[in-house]
Amino acid sequence: MPKQIGVIGSGDLSKDEEAYRIAEQVGEEIARTKAILICGGLYGVMEACAKGAKKCKGITVGILPGESKEEANPYIDIKIVTAMSHARNAIIARSCDALIAVGGDYGTLSEIVLALKSSKKVVVIKTRDSLVSKVADSLPVYIAKNAKEAVEFCIKA
Amino acid sequence: MPKQIGVIGSGDLSKDEEAYRIAEQVGEEIARTKAILICGGLYGVMEACAKGAKKCKGITVGILPGESKEEANPYIDIKIVTAMSHARNAIIARSCDALIAVGGDYGTLSEIVLALKSSKKVVVIKTRDSLVSKVADSLPVYIAKNAKEAVEFCIKA
Amino acid sequence: MPKQIGVIGSGDLSKDEEAYRIAEQVGEEIARTKAILICGGLYGVMEACAKGAKKCKGITVGILPGESKEEANPYIDIKIVTAMSHARNAIIARSCDALIAVGGDYGTLSEIVLALKSSKKVVVIKTRDSLVSKVADSLPVYIAKNAKEAVEFCIKA
Amino acid sequence: MPKQIGVIGSGDLSKDEEAYRIAEQVGEEIARTKAILICGGLYGVMEACAKGAKKCKGITVGILPGESKEEANPYIDIKIVTAMSHARNAIIARSCDALIAVGGDYGTLSEIVLALKSSKKVVVIKTRDSLVSKVADSLPVYIAKNAKEAVEFCIKA
Repeated sequence: MPKQIGVIGSGDLSKDEEAYRIAEQVGEEIARTKAILICGGLYGVMEACAKGAKKCKGITVGILPGESKEEANPYIDIKIVTAMSHARNAIIARSCDALIAVGGDYGTLSEIVLALKSSKKVVVIKTRDSLVSKVADSLPVYIAKNAKEAVEFCIKA
Repeated sequence: MPKQIGVIGSGDLSKDEEAYRIAEQVGEEIARTKAILICGGLYGVMEACAKGAKKCKGITVGILPGESKEEANPYIDIKIVTAMSHARNAIIARSCDALIAVGGDYGTLSEIVLALKSSKKVVVIKTRDSLVSKVADSLPVYIAKNAKEAVEFCIKA
Repeated sequence: MPKQIGVIGSGDLSKDEEAYRIAEQVGEEIARTKAILICGGLYGVMEACAKGAKKCKGITVGILPGESKEEANPYIDIKIVTAMSHARNAIIARSCDALIAVGGDYGTLSEIVLALKSSKKVVVIKTRDSLVSKVADSLPVYIAKNAKEAVEFCIKA
Repeated sequence: MPKQIGVIGSGDLSKDEEAYRIAEQVGEEIARTKAILICGGLYGVMEACAKGAKKCKGITVGILPGESKEEANPYIDIKIVTAMSHARNAIIARSCDALIAVGGDYGTLSEIVLALKSSKKVVVIKTRDSLVSKVADSLPVYIAKNAKEAVEFCIKA
């Protein structure tokens, strides 16, 4: 059975090209290991990781917060329309075997702690200026230096 | 973009082999049209349609009600763990472009009406003794005679 | 412990004064028996029953579909903000000891069947032209002639 | 309109009498200001604050994670049965005008960040050894020294 790996982080990376590039590499690595990518289906980190996964012919799932499939980014294969707003974060956390956070703010942090509460392994790749990068050292998460190390940790988990 | 077609119905078909066979054919037809099958991921109609889809190399998605991936039937590729009990029915209804009910009782009927409320097309294949078969004529749904007709209707919708 | 009685029905009664009056009476009767009124918190039947309950100094709870308390009608004491759209219907069904439907369409019917699935008692007061009135006779619900009879049935249930 | 104030924290205080006493005082203060207390409805901090509120004749609401009203602690007036497990945290965060955390671990932290994401004011009363107390200084929350200060902050917010 292929693993389901979640990728989370900020929905707006218009000012952080580096985080976009890292998230894209995370998606590529996930697809290479034949794991299924699960994300929130929107923009920023969610778009970047799905773009990376499609480049390597992976399967991408978007757990969308709104009421329509149309809000998904163009790299999402399977669109789950929750119409539950932020509460969909709990579904992402539950559905993953392991979770990779590329930086991120409040929403990302809520997903991380929900995942920890459900005993899932969580990996953080720190990005500059993000809330998650600041509090990560207080949480029982694995800090990875790059995309490859993050995905390897998830596959072994 | 492939369509996402939902299949719903009773979770227990141990006494209704005919409904199991119909649901399996529905899954086969969905896979042949390259659409993605979305279902509740458990047993009865959900297992039968996923089994049919996998026979024809389709992709199957299970929107699970409980707290663990382990409850999915063995024919589910992508396991969405909602931990929301019956409220996950609303997610199935929202995520589909069209919905096929193979008979069914209370849970199925709630999904049908939620799908109608979201302006989705709904097809019913009647089975003996089921609540949905009894009330279908009072609802704005398409009554199909068999799996092929049901899926054709969804693809055109 | 006071009972929690749910009242459901159409959210738009601008063309059905009779249903508004019945729902208001249902709210009055619920408050007189010291039960807690649970509803969807918006307009139409939801407003009418809450208005009736407040007239008789009852407590009213609104399980809101949107993202803000502000959408509640002015007769709601306790505002539960689900941000879950139609999926909040499942919470109304679960939270009630018994459920009274004053007519209603798709949304109402989905709540009725979710309540039946959770083994709750359901009472229907038929109103003209409504979907629920049409299909009620096919469902294991109690058909009440008026507000008093409906609430009495719920209290005994 | 009375405010709706949320109180969150650990569900198990069997080894932390001090946190239990603080949460009880928070409930008392909320009731004295005529605000409505919203909590998760179970044990630990949730029981303590509801107990305090009932001592001062306040109204208590429990947003329950499970499938039955029976799981509520004995001090809950209004029982909202979500059957949504941890995802109910998002409903608590949304329904409050302001949120008070008495220490707490992963679940509490997820509620805090969801509340911040929804632009709600959050107050933390630190307790020994809790995760929330450790990370609170990294978050835009108000740190209160005691129950009275915490509730005063919420009322002014």
